[in-house]
Parts: sequence; structure tokens; C-alpha cells
Amino acid sequence: MKQSLSNLSIHTADTAIDTFTKDLKCLVPDPVSLSIGLPNEDLIPKKQLEEVFTSILNHNEIPFYHYCDAKGMPQLIETISIKEKISPEHILITSGNTQGIELCTRLFLNNKDVIAMEEYSYSLIHTISKQFQSSVVQVPLSFDGLDTDYLEKTLKHQKIKILYVIPNSQNPTGITLSLAKRKKLIELAYKYDFIIIEDDPYRDLSFHAPLPSLFELDANKEKVVYLYSFSKTIAPTLRTGFILAHPYFIDKFTQLKQIADSCTSPLHQLVINELINSNEWSNHLKRTQNFYEERKEITKAFLTKMNNKYGWTSYEPCGGMFYWVDLQYGDAQNFLKTAYEHGVLFIPGQVFSFESKTSTTFRLCYSYCSDSDLEKAFSRLESSYLNWLQM
Amino acid sequence: MKQSLSNLSIHTADTAIDTFTKDLKCLVPDPVSLSIGLPNEDLIPKKQLEEVFTSILNHNEIPFYHYCDAKGMPQLIETISIKEKISPEHILITSGNTQGIELCTRLFLNNKDVIAMEEYSYSLIHTISKQFQSSVVQVPLSFDGLDTDYLEKTLKHQKIKILYVIPNSQNPTGITLSLAKRKKLIELAYKYDFIIIEDDPYRDLSFHAPLPSLFELDANKEKVVYLYSFSKTIAPTLRTGFILAHPYFIDKFTQLKQIADSCTSPLHQLVINELINSNEWSNHLKRTQNFYEERKEITKAFLTKMNNKYGWTSYEPCGGMFYWVDLQYGDAQNFLKTAYEHGVLFIPGQVFSFESKTSTTFRLCYSYCSDSDLEKAFSRLESSYLNWLQM
Repeated sequence: MKQSLSNLSIHTADTAIDTFTKDLKCLVPDPVSLSIGLPNEDLIPKKQLEEVFTSILNHNEIPFYHYCDAKGMPQLIETISIKEKISPEHILITSGNTQGIELCTRLFLNNKDVIAMEEYSYSLIHTISKQFQSSVVQVPLSFDGLDTDYLEKTLKHQKIKILYVIPNSQNPTGITLSLAKRKKLIELAYKYDFIIIEDDPYRDLSFHAPLPSLFELDANKEKVVYLYSFSKTIAPTLRTGFILAHPYFIDKFTQLKQIADSCTSPLHQLVINELINSNEWSNHLKRTQNFYEERKEITKAFLTKMNNKYGWTSYEPCGGMFYWVDLQYGDAQNFLKTAYEHGVLFIPGQVFSFESKTSTTFRLCYSYCSDSDLEKAFSRLESSYLNWLQM
Repeated sequence: MKQSLSNLSIHTADTAIDTFTKDLKCLVPDPVSLSIGLPNEDLIPKKQLEEVFTSILNHNEIPFYHYCDAKGMPQLIETISIKEKISPEHILITSGNTQGIELCTRLFLNNKDVIAMEEYSYSLIHTISKQFQSSVVQVPLSFDGLDTDYLEKTLKHQKIKILYVIPNSQNPTGITLSLAKRKKLIELAYKYDFIIIEDDPYRDLSFHAPLPSLFELDANKEKVVYLYSFSKTIAPTLRTGFILAHPYFIDKFTQLKQIADSCTSPLHQLVINELINSNEWSNHLKRTQNFYEERKEITKAFLTKMNNKYGWTSYEPCGGMFYWVDLQYGDAQNFLKTAYEHGVLFIPGQVFSFESKTSTTFRLCYSYCSDSDLEKAFSRLESSYLNWLQM
């Protein structure tokens, strides 16, 4: 049956993050996962969701049962237009950032086009790069984001089509791109003619006011496509996000969106519109940010101890869900085997590397588990590390 | 900015059905549309939807707020497995049939592959054919479905990759494919090695028991991909459907689905699972079928009169939402201009033709408008026709 497949599907594989646990064994009955990049259950606005769903479903006059324009429901577009300070023709509603990323690949990528990205990045962009048989430029990361000098040197001899970047509280490293580097990237995009995909689901989990987006910094709006999702601040189940881009690109995105899924659920769009317009919304965001910042502090205390005792290093994030740790020794994938036997799960750096390169790094996600599980996970992390060292 | 676009997006255009009204003018204040292929508002199970949403959103233990497997929620897959009498590894949940169709194009189509379809078909498949720069084989239709002899003759000298077919109450013609022709298509698919995309959203709107699907008739399950959507029997806003296919294809579809939108809303999947498992469900379907059959009868009475008086011809559908009319003279697109001035809207045949060929045919959709609007529309259709004849 393989002879029926397209070239694209032959080159499509499972995403690494979905398969990295397949050979692992846990020897305790209550493993704790620090691998899940999901909102904490306590932060999902369940009561408001129920109220808003009920109120909309009771309101018979609104024709939200049907399809809507592929571009999205006018009410939600208007709200986003006000909040993002950009005119409606720059906005398309998506079924989450996964769809946002895929629409970008459809709009811009030909087979074998070159894609640049942070050296550790969201594994979906790797899967897509393989799907398009793209050459990949992996740009080294430091505390203030990807190395723009390295990128510029590369651009002098290699044409790239897309730079995929997660500017705030990056997945997996938690790093936030500095303002100077943001400005530099815009300059490079115009000079070397490439498109920046700015994937920004963690913006509203920043512990301080976020920096201007690359999209805001791009005065002509010709080089940056901005992707936002409500999955991290409300709930993934609503499958809703948006794209901000030049109206020329939005018109093309709309055609592609029509073919992809007709439209995003009008019901979900109205629910989100109600939620983000409610008086509760800014409190909800503040509460969410405080919660994650507290979790980050607990994680920081643990990692400071580990860094001092064992020579680990780590980046302190200024938002989001992730802490990036470097053992400075060995192979984190190998350490994971022992750690998981002891009942703690994290994601080793190689899962986030395009070539699955062996790495001393790993990602700790402090967002999802309960407070008591977090302490349990840290204690297991230390004991399994000692155990692993002796192996 | 055009130089940034991919070949695929350069060849992507608006779907014809979204643009056919753009040069029309209506001269009355209350136009009636017989163009909208949507469930009648009275048939959407609003009360049950509200109850089921509320009950699920109240039920805190179920983790439907997050993502689920790209394949779908196990509960819904199990229900579909029972109802469709097929094992779960043959099933993937989609975000509606639009996504189902697009996943098929990704799984099977390379650029310029040949696509066969009914001579009048769903305009989305035309848009996709243009996107892939495909040659298109338009297979003539008669009362019992597409002309399999014509298809066979074509296959003797032309390799096709995909046959796209709507077997029940076809859009736009309302025609249902006969059992003999279904069997013939399976035979041809194996003999000439092509994949059949069976797009079947109207099955549960059949006025009598539906015929076996092509998928059921394909004993080895290697040649048919079956697409179903809950948009016509519940509501489009839930954006949920499913694919039935060989497990080999389902595994590949799952990888593509993961990249397309991670998963279909778990909340919507649970809502649908509750609805279709409820005691009310068979009554709801029966009521829906009766409603549309009654509408069809009213339309039939009108068309019988028109056929007798003016020499029109029409196919009587045995299910679904559409009646196909042939003026036997002139250009239905031209007639539409006059008809819309008089306040009635339908979709001329050329919108459903790949090459937008001038046609004497048009589609009447009797599902959406109110009873009184239907009578008003018919009266306007006759008076505008007389008016148009005299022009």
C-alpha cells in the first residue's frame, strides 16, 4: 500500500515528543511527570467556561451552530483587533498554533526550502522540516535568545526561506529573546529576504511585562507572521488561536484555512470572546502568571542546590512553564532511564534537537503537576542522579 | 510579497461557491436563499446540546480540557467502532470532512497527479485540484450515479490517482450511486490501482435505508477511504467527523493530523459521543429524515409543475438536501441574475463544474429556509423565469 502514498506523507513521521518514552520503564507505582507542557488544572477557568457555554447555548438568536467565514467570527476578530492594536484585516482565527504553523508551511514552503530555528526547538517544526525534506539551520542559543551573529554569518552564504522562533519563554529552554536581538532579526529578514514565524503561545505567562513582539517591531509587516494560541491561558480543548500578518498574507492564509477545516468552531470562538472580554480576564491572567512564577521559584531553589552540589547549570526563565537544565556531563537521555525507574519523567534535550543529537541538557516543566508532586519529583531527581552517577 | 509564496499557495484560490454571488443584485428587501446546504435550524438538537455541554463541563474528573491523542478520544472511537461495525484501528477522528478531504490529499497526492470526480461535484475538490495542478477527469452523471463505463474507458489510457465520489444524495445533484456501480468502482480501483475517497456526509439523511458504502464493499480495505461528518446531523459548529480506512492508512493519517491541528476538540468529541449514544438519537435522525423528505415532496410538487409547463427536468433525490434542475435551455447563471433580482437565490451548475462550464442546470437546496420562505421562493422562481424568458 506504500506505493499509494504521496512524497510528503512518505517523509512524515511521528513527532519525537510522542515517542521518547517508548523504551522507558518505571519501577514505582506513582511516577511524577515533569514533561507535560500543559496548563495546571487549577488554572483552567472551569466555572467561567461552564457559565459562558451555558449562556451562549441558551441564547438562541446567535447563529453559532453553523460555519462561519474561514477568517473567523467578526466579534472575536474585533476583540483581538482592539487588544492587539492592529486592524482586523491583519487577523485570521486558527484552530490553535499547530494549525498556525502548518498554514505557514503551506503558504511559504516549497520542498527542500531551508528552515532556520533555535538549536533546541518545538519538535513539531522538526517533523515538518523532515516532511518538506528541508535543510535545517540550527542557530545556537544563549541566555538572551538565538545567536544573531551566527545567523547573519550563515545568511551570507546560505539562502533561508523561514526562521521559526519562539520569542518568549521558549520551548524547551524557557529563554526570552532580547529586544536588541528582536530588532536585529527584523533587520536581517529584510536584508536577506526571509520570513519569520513568530510562535508566541507563552507571552501571557510572562512574569513581567513582555517585550514588543517581532511583529510589532516589523514596521512594514512584510516579514513576520505572528502566532498566538489560547491553549496555555484558557484550555487546549478549545482549539483556538490566531495569526497576525500582512493583509496580503492573511488573504492567502484564509484560502488555505478554508481548505484545511472550513473554519474554527464558531461556538468556541464566541466562548473565547466572552472570556477575554470579561472583567475576570485580567485577574485570571495575573493569577496564572503568579502561580507559574511561584512554581518557577520552587524549581529555582531546587536547581540552585543541584547546581552548587553537582555542577549542573540552568537558565532561570522569566515566564512560561519550562526550566532548562544542563548536567554538564554525560547523556541526559541515559540519565532519564534511571530517573524514570525512580519515578520521575522529564524530556531530554535530544528530543528537541533536529538531529536527535546526544545532549547533557533536559527540560523540566513545572506547570502541570501538583505542589506535593513537584517536591516528590525533585527528591527523586536527586536520588536517581546519585544512583546514575554510580552506574 | 508574492515571491515569498510557495507553489502550492500560488495555485490556491477562493472556492467558487464563496464567490458566485459577488456580481448579483437583489431588488427586493427579503431575498430567500435556496443555496445554503446547511441543517435546518429547527433540526439542530439545541436543548440536548445545552444539556450535554453542561453535564460534561460539570463533570470535573474527565480531563477533556487538554489535548487528546491525534487519533481521537477513545470513548468516541469505541462508539463509532460499534456503530460502524469496524475495529478501532480503522478509525481516526477529524475536524469535519473538510479536514478529512485535505488529509486525503496530503496522504495520497503528488503535484499534477490525476483526480477523477463526478462532472458536477463539491467545489472544494476543484480548489484542491487546482492547488495540486492536477489534471481532472470529469465523469458524466446519470440517475444512478457516475458513468462507470466512461470511467473504465478513461482508465484504459489514463492513470488516475484518486477518485473523489459522494455516493449518497450527492452534492450538488442529489443523486445516489447504485449498488451495481459501487461494486464496479471497487473492481476498477483494484484493477487500475487508484484510491477512492468516499465523502459521505448525507448518508444519515437518506429517506430509505442507505446502500452499503464503498468502504464496506471493499473487502481488503486497501482502496477506499471513507469520510463522515456530524455537521449535517448535529451541527457544523462542532467541527467533528471521522475517517474509516485501512489501519496502515490510519497510522499515516494520524501523523498528518498531529501536524494539522494536534487533535479535534476533546470537549466536542465527548459531546458527540453522549449525543449519539443517547436514547434520543434514533428519534432525532428519524425526525431529521422525515423533515427533509417532506421538504423534498414540496419541492417535487413545484418542480413537477415547472417540468410540465416549461420543459424543465429534474432528478428526484432519495435523501439529503438537494434537488438538481435542468432548464434544458440557456444558461442557469444568467437566469440566476434575474431570479436574484426577484429575490430568490440558487446555485447554478457551473459553480460545481471544474472548468466553470456554462450549464443549463442548477441546485435547489430545500433544507435551510422556513416553510413559508420555500413557497415564496418557488413563486419567485416561476415569475422570474417567465421574466427571464422574455428578455
